[in-house]
Amino acid sequence: MKEVVLGLLGLGNIGGGVWDLVREFGGEVEKRTGVKLRIKKALVLDVKIHGGKEVPDEVLTTDKNDILEDPEIQIVCEFLGGEQPAASMMLRALENGKSVVTANKMALSLHFDELRAMAGKTGAGLYYEASVGGAIPIINAIQSPLIANHIEQMMGIVNGTTNYILTRMTAEGAEYEDVLKDAQRLGLAEPDPTADVEGYDAAYKLSIAGSLAFHSRVKVENVYREGITKVSAEDIAFGREMGYVLKLLAIGKDNGDSIEARVHPVFLPADHPLARVDGSLNAVYLYGHSFKDMMLEGRGAGDAPTASAIVGDIIQAAQNAAHPMPYLREDPLPVADDWHSKYFIRMKAKDAPGVLAEVTGLLGGEGISISTMMQKGAAPDGKATLIFITHEASEKAVQRALKSMNPEICVVENVIRVEE
Amino acid sequence: MKEVVLGLLGLGNIGGGVWDLVREFGGEVEKRTGVKLRIKKALVLDVKIHGGKEVPDEVLTTDKNDILEDPEIQIVCEFLGGEQPAASMMLRALENGKSVVTANKMALSLHFDELRAMAGKTGAGLYYEASVGGAIPIINAIQSPLIANHIEQMMGIVNGTTNYILTRMTAEGAEYEDVLKDAQRLGLAEPDPTADVEGYDAAYKLSIAGSLAFHSRVKVENVYREGITKVSAEDIAFGREMGYVLKLLAIGKDNGDSIEARVHPVFLPADHPLARVDGSLNAVYLYGHSFKDMMLEGRGAGDAPTASAIVGDIIQAAQNAAHPMPYLREDPLPVADDWHSKYFIRMKAKDAPGVLAEVTGLLGGEGISISTMMQKGAAPDGKATLIFITHEASEKAVQRALKSMNPEICVVENVIRVEE
Repeated sequence: MKEVVLGLLGLGNIGGGVWDLVREFGGEVEKRTGVKLRIKKALVLDVKIHGGKEVPDEVLTTDKNDILEDPEIQIVCEFLGGEQPAASMMLRALENGKSVVTANKMALSLHFDELRAMAGKTGAGLYYEASVGGAIPIINAIQSPLIANHIEQMMGIVNGTTNYILTRMTAEGAEYEDVLKDAQRLGLAEPDPTADVEGYDAAYKLSIAGSLAFHSRVKVENVYREGITKVSAEDIAFGREMGYVLKLLAIGKDNGDSIEARVHPVFLPADHPLARVDGSLNAVYLYGHSFKDMMLEGRGAGDAPTASAIVGDIIQAAQNAAHPMPYLREDPLPVADDWHSKYFIRMKAKDAPGVLAEVTGLLGGEGISISTMMQKGAAPDGKATLIFITHEASEKAVQRALKSMNPEICVVENVIRVEE
Repeated sequence: MKEVVLGLLGLGNIGGGVWDLVREFGGEVEKRTGVKLRIKKALVLDVKIHGGKEVPDEVLTTDKNDILEDPEIQIVCEFLGGEQPAASMMLRALENGKSVVTANKMALSLHFDELRAMAGKTGAGLYYEASVGGAIPIINAIQSPLIANHIEQMMGIVNGTTNYILTRMTAEGAEYEDVLKDAQRLGLAEPDPTADVEGYDAAYKLSIAGSLAFHSRVKVENVYREGITKVSAEDIAFGREMGYVLKLLAIGKDNGDSIEARVHPVFLPADHPLARVDGSLNAVYLYGHSFKDMMLEGRGAGDAPTASAIVGDIIQAAQNAAHPMPYLREDPLPVADDWHSKYFIRMKAKDAPGVLAEVTGLLGGEGISISTMMQKGAAPDGKATLIFITHEASEKAVQRALKSMNPEICVVENVIRVEE
């Protein structure tokens, strides 16, 4: 039996979940793994406020140094969230030779290189299964059982809030703003929902998982990012008529000489495995040259599922004699600023002869050919709704073609990429 | 860099897949992990027959001792299939301190205790990710990232042949025998399909994964097993009318004081995540007290996906300083011979007054209440088809009630369990 001494930075939802899991299930974990977990200290803002958990007074502290500088503490678990002071505290813990376990995708994504370098220098471990997909063991899978693969593609539903909103918009034909308000009322979206609905959260996660899957650093600032705020009930309804389901995806592709890394709404065929991953569920679809297609699906958030991943990491950190660092190429592949996709284009056009010819002519001029076209009868304003699904085309060509359209004749209302 | 010397027992489909993966991707694996893989010897029946692979003469051998007794070989990969001589060879390798990697669910399930004991004695490792679910990292997940969970339920589609047959029966309304013949013609079912269609293969896999998930040894002889040979197109069609999809599932449940372990056809609600796992895909659905619901889906067979899991295991065996053995209770929980489920019961009954009352009376007498009943008009023989879906009932009670029915009045044609 081996006792491992832990310090928790934060005792909010996730920290409290870890506290509960260790208290209630620590004995069983010890039987299974030979590792006895002891939480020595937990950093809180106020020792009087700790989420109603019955935590002994001597465990609580408001001084980070009681954790970061205590030589007895071997593993530091960071639950503060946000970039700072989380990143600096993790860096200090690693510097002091303590392994770090975190669920903080923002601090990790933004400071990945320094944290990795420090861990490498001191031989401490850096574990972050919970940072992408919550309880889903995606970080472990791509680093260990799936290591003998050239992972060509990764497509994930990695943000529960946006998946919940899109699922309800789809089921109810409701508009984004209305569902968002309801989700906020239910505590399923933050009062300031920007990080989720604008795709920042998904982009951090893609930056982390993509770096590992493609063994090439994907910085978050190079991830193309577009949220769900422009999606309308009309888009979803038209897509559905054409057999598509709308999801916010984090997409990574290894094209050999470049990496695609993009977060944006996507129309998926209704029979795609990701299409029926609804509500607050998360899922990651992978394609590897050897394992072929795979999908891992589960709870991407919540106290208990996140604590499940955290304690799994703690046990790994405790059991590993050496802490393996993921291999990343020294010359990272560039992140592509253009890519090929199919496109759903919704526009309002003047209902007049020659308009369709002009629109399709502009698309054709950029090498974009149409696979499906749908026209919905003219509205009272004399404008008709046109929906195009294109064949595979270049992103840049599509943007150029749409920019060149005369707004007097047609107004592009939304463009949504289609993956198959 | 660390060179690891491998011996392969067998160079057929899976062995050949590993040969190819190591040859083509070994350099990349070395970069990623620091482990250089060298295949020193491969055991074949005839050095002239090795699946068309270009294997140097000095690698091929027909003498198992060239592998099992060579002190330079550190890891033995077993691809012989079947119980013997595979089990004895694995035991000998472990005895000689060599770690063993295998995909052989039969030999592993039947000899799990001796192999584990020998590995524990000599400190060698025993790795078998590929034995359940092929490339899907289920063995790794339940042993490592999900370790801090009481896994309450595991339901898997773990046999590709039967899933292929059921998927085609469902899509085409075809009968079992016809689809089986076609699957045999296409090489998707064995000339003797017993191991797959009678559920033996799935039972071996459940015995292995269940032992690990519930930390209590589940012997294959205690797994209730029923194959798909009695399933008719009519069952599938009636089930579909009621919103169900038919799958052959391996089900494990931890009831606290006993384990359920059973392989049989199951009707699942059409919106269950396993219901749309079609063709030769495999998937395992898990429920853990902390991670909640999760599903892992991918390729359960095939040379390349299996090789993916094998090489993942080899790397783990090479990197682990100590080889952790899964914890199993010393006093295994009993495997339940009764359980609760809903039931789909199809019977042919005399189309006469009082018959329905008698049938429902017999069911009611055993405490079985009906949730849905469907009667299909009398056939030319004056018999009507009755379909019942029961509420949750005890397996034994259902079997007793059905046994007590008067065959003059009604004949039970099939009973299929319904899980939700």
